[in-house]
Amino acid sequence: MTTTAASASSSAIKEAYDELAAGLREQSSLEGVMGIIGWDELTFMPPGAADVRAAQKSALAGVLHDTATTPRRGELLAALADVCDLAAAGLAPGQVATVREATRAYHKKAAVPRELAQRRAALESSAYSAWVAARGADEGRGRWSDFAPSLRAWIDIIREQAALTHPGIPDVYDAALDDYEKGATAARMDALFAELKRGLIPILDEIKARRAARDAAAGGPVDDGAPLRVAIDVGAQARLCRAVAIDLGFDLEAGRLDVSVHPFTGGCAGDCRMTTRYKPNDFTEGLTGTVHETGHSLYEQGRNPDALWSGLPVADPLSMGIHESQSLIWERSVALSRPFAVYLSNKLSSFGDQPGDGAEPGDREALRPLAALSAEDIYRGMNEVRRESFVRVEADEVQYSLHVILRYEIERDLLAGNLDAADVPAVWNRKMEEALGVVVPNDAAGCLQDVHWSAGAVGYFPTYVVGAVAAAQLHEAAAAALPSLDADVAAGNFGPLRTWLREAVHHRGSLPASGDELLELVTGRPLDAACFLRYLRHKYLDADDAIFPAAPL
Amino acid sequence: MTTTAASASSSAIKEAYDELAAGLREQSSLEGVMGIIGWDELTFMPPGAADVRAAQKSALAGVLHDTATTPRRGELLAALADVCDLAAAGLAPGQVATVREATRAYHKKAAVPRELAQRRAALESSAYSAWVAARGADEGRGRWSDFAPSLRAWIDIIREQAALTHPGIPDVYDAALDDYEKGATAARMDALFAELKRGLIPILDEIKARRAARDAAAGGPVDDGAPLRVAIDVGAQARLCRAVAIDLGFDLEAGRLDVSVHPFTGGCAGDCRMTTRYKPNDFTEGLTGTVHETGHSLYEQGRNPDALWSGLPVADPLSMGIHESQSLIWERSVALSRPFAVYLSNKLSSFGDQPGDGAEPGDREALRPLAALSAEDIYRGMNEVRRESFVRVEADEVQYSLHVILRYEIERDLLAGNLDAADVPAVWNRKMEEALGVVVPNDAAGCLQDVHWSAGAVGYFPTYVVGAVAAAQLHEAAAAALPSLDADVAAGNFGPLRTWLREAVHHRGSLPASGDELLELVTGRPLDAACFLRYLRHKYLDADDAIFPAAPL
Repeated sequence: MTTTAASASSSAIKEAYDELAAGLREQSSLEGVMGIIGWDELTFMPPGAADVRAAQKSALAGVLHDTATTPRRGELLAALADVCDLAAAGLAPGQVATVREATRAYHKKAAVPRELAQRRAALESSAYSAWVAARGADEGRGRWSDFAPSLRAWIDIIREQAALTHPGIPDVYDAALDDYEKGATAARMDALFAELKRGLIPILDEIKARRAARDAAAGGPVDDGAPLRVAIDVGAQARLCRAVAIDLGFDLEAGRLDVSVHPFTGGCAGDCRMTTRYKPNDFTEGLTGTVHETGHSLYEQGRNPDALWSGLPVADPLSMGIHESQSLIWERSVALSRPFAVYLSNKLSSFGDQPGDGAEPGDREALRPLAALSAEDIYRGMNEVRRESFVRVEADEVQYSLHVILRYEIERDLLAGNLDAADVPAVWNRKMEEALGVVVPNDAAGCLQDVHWSAGAVGYFPTYVVGAVAAAQLHEAAAAALPSLDADVAAGNFGPLRTWLREAVHHRGSLPASGDELLELVTGRPLDAACFLRYLRHKYLDADDAIFPAAPL
Repeated sequence: MTTTAASASSSAIKEAYDELAAGLREQSSLEGVMGIIGWDELTFMPPGAADVRAAQKSALAGVLHDTATTPRRGELLAALADVCDLAAAGLAPGQVATVREATRAYHKKAAVPRELAQRRAALESSAYSAWVAARGADEGRGRWSDFAPSLRAWIDIIREQAALTHPGIPDVYDAALDDYEKGATAARMDALFAELKRGLIPILDEIKARRAARDAAAGGPVDDGAPLRVAIDVGAQARLCRAVAIDLGFDLEAGRLDVSVHPFTGGCAGDCRMTTRYKPNDFTEGLTGTVHETGHSLYEQGRNPDALWSGLPVADPLSMGIHESQSLIWERSVALSRPFAVYLSNKLSSFGDQPGDGAEPGDREALRPLAALSAEDIYRGMNEVRRESFVRVEADEVQYSLHVILRYEIERDLLAGNLDAADVPAVWNRKMEEALGVVVPNDAAGCLQDVHWSAGAVGYFPTYVVGAVAAAQLHEAAAAALPSLDADVAAGNFGPLRTWLREAVHHRGSLPASGDELLELVTGRPLDAACFLRYLRHKYLDADDAIFPAAPL
């Protein structure tokens, strides 16, 4: 090949890439519009506009589908796919990753015919209604059998879609996972979760045994969480939590903090809309919710600003699991630590001292019951291990993953055809007893508690555990890189950790092809259950200042 | 033609109409999305998201253009255009009007090539920047010559576009008008405005003469507006005005009331987003702004809910002038009347009496200076005729139309090629002296005061006067139909007028083809300057309780 031919071909590649990137940026803008109207729907939209908004979202979804599957996109990707080495042809690594991610997304979207997409949308509505009705049935105890047919329909549709998007895939669950945790496989999750379960159940059993001994010594059950469960004005809670989010690094120039019924992080790249909710008698919920969503928001606000990346898939967060690791590293590794309790205790006492700190007159008085607590009381209150844990979203960090793993095992069996939807409650309840030692009282508090399956989100649950494991690994690596991390957190100086995460995770966006690849880069190991188990055992059982120390001999 | 052939053709027409309507509804949904993100941009968007939002709006504008000009739309409209009598073919009147409006919009949009649309967008940005800079130039006195080239470019582009959208139109200003006031012609506006000017100048002169006599008798200038220009907490103002908007009938189930730098009514059909602003020392501005925007909002919220109309052009507000009539009938005919002053006086005194009336502790104290005024003081304060009127947006109802007419005369001459952009200040200043008797001190307070021309909005100004004239006619008709109108307004019972407007104007949407046609239907006459002049002369000069009564002999 002559040099002239090579550079002509190189310029054709550059041209194809530029046209592809322009289309992807337009798509990203339209997705951003969807993000903003979705946020508006859950925060400020008047109630009577629900139907109008539904029609708007449907119209925009149609436009987005057309934009993402335009034949021209397919032609450009095909032209680029013919090039065996895009980097050698002059594309930068971020551009190569953009082509990779665009190809992945295009083939998945284009493989789904409009008719199937419409059936999915219809099932989403009907299954959601069935789930709401089933939860409320039998005087609020719930009736799974009312929902089972919808789940069965979802399993069928997910199999049908997997056959189109991943023809010939040996394990259909891999296709389901690919929607949420790219690069992960069911075989990998099987091994990871089995190791976790093997480690978590003994930790939990040991905690229970030591707690029973402590209760006996105290002459009755000790309630660690009680000091934090006092009535606090929600306005004062909200202003304090807003100040905490700002301390953590939430950028109000490029986002908003509001209140909504369910906390979420929405909006779009460059305009992050985060919400929290507050309960009058449970300060912890509002605070941990705020810190959790702030973690998600820092990832969103930390996209790589490189002009070659901006508005393109390579700048997007890597996966749901890695996104969750960013919320959990702040919610658990940081906010459930002793140094954070010191920071929070100081914050509670000093809120309102500085002009412009966000406090209003009366907040100091409203927060007094919390400000009076010691840092150690706060630490122990926030790290309460529930005696009976039925509900995933209320679970503590020790029991949480066990909740998720049993969902994974069930949906894996459903998709493999080893379990029928009708039999979910029996399996659920047996697994709850085996893993968590609780007897589920009814379906509403059991297998009907989560919305995910009603939306067809099979393959989503594992990302919660991926996030928990990755958070522990990233925090271990951060602590190794930042010797003064604990002292910084205690002093409310969150900048060093935020900067470290920005470089290690946020700015890398979707350059790595999987969570494993990112973690290898940052921590030297792929997802590693051992690190997470080490963290829990040390904190709750083995450390000198463990929450449940070994009973003195 | 046999019956079978007729009904086959009828069913083909029905099919074409249904497909057209589905496309128009989708377009309306996407326009609604634009309305919501446009509202968000001016209210809640974080400042750093401006570039992201600009890219989103540009992407969505592209989608909207494609949707509105899709060749299939053209085919369907052509098929329907071939039918000489759509009503005979089975379409309802609202459907026939939808075809008419869709045809009008399609031909105008499709006639503008993408290249021209892009040049317009670029000029919008550069002309706006030039206008801002020109206003600020010369230490805030403004320098028209910095903006003149932009206006000249607009005039060229508007002519170029008119040649495409209205080939062979004898008066190019008619094409400009058509973008804002369909069915209106420059010849019609010439006649209307000439009659108005002939009537308004003598009224204004007589007011000035009687005021001079009154001042002389009082030994110095009497300041009617002073009692309302007192310092009032803006929070208290906002809550009172919100309560007024709700009294007038703003529906919070289908809209929101917020605060923004410039008041506007935005959002979309079914989700009306209205904003107001408040000034610490000028209660009137916040109140009249609120009532004005409420008038616009009631029109938007009053769309005909008929399923055959919903989401289609026939349900849209008729024109900018008729929209303005809906804001002005509430702002002027109602809120500047004596009965409204009685209502407002009672409202100011009783705000905070009823639980749930929207008042907060402290509002009663904050509003005390206004609550202490008599209804007559409020009436006179709100109807102050400015001694020197330079600025259109601050003008009273007597002088307002004169401000607008001179803009109309100038832009008419610009478009006709009888005036060069460079010569605008001289013409402006001469006309201001002739019509309003004031010497314009500089360009910033003169021909650079309005943003419209920088956006290429030539043909927009006349709609303000159309609105003022139509409001007077509609109010005269309402008063004839509702004998207890004044008593109802004084009692804060705005339902009868609102219901009357809903049936007479709102529900008719775009069924009539022009403002003249609507007014003929409702008042028996097309736009009629005499009615507006009669209203002003009676209120300010001739009535027994006129604001400037004839001096006693």
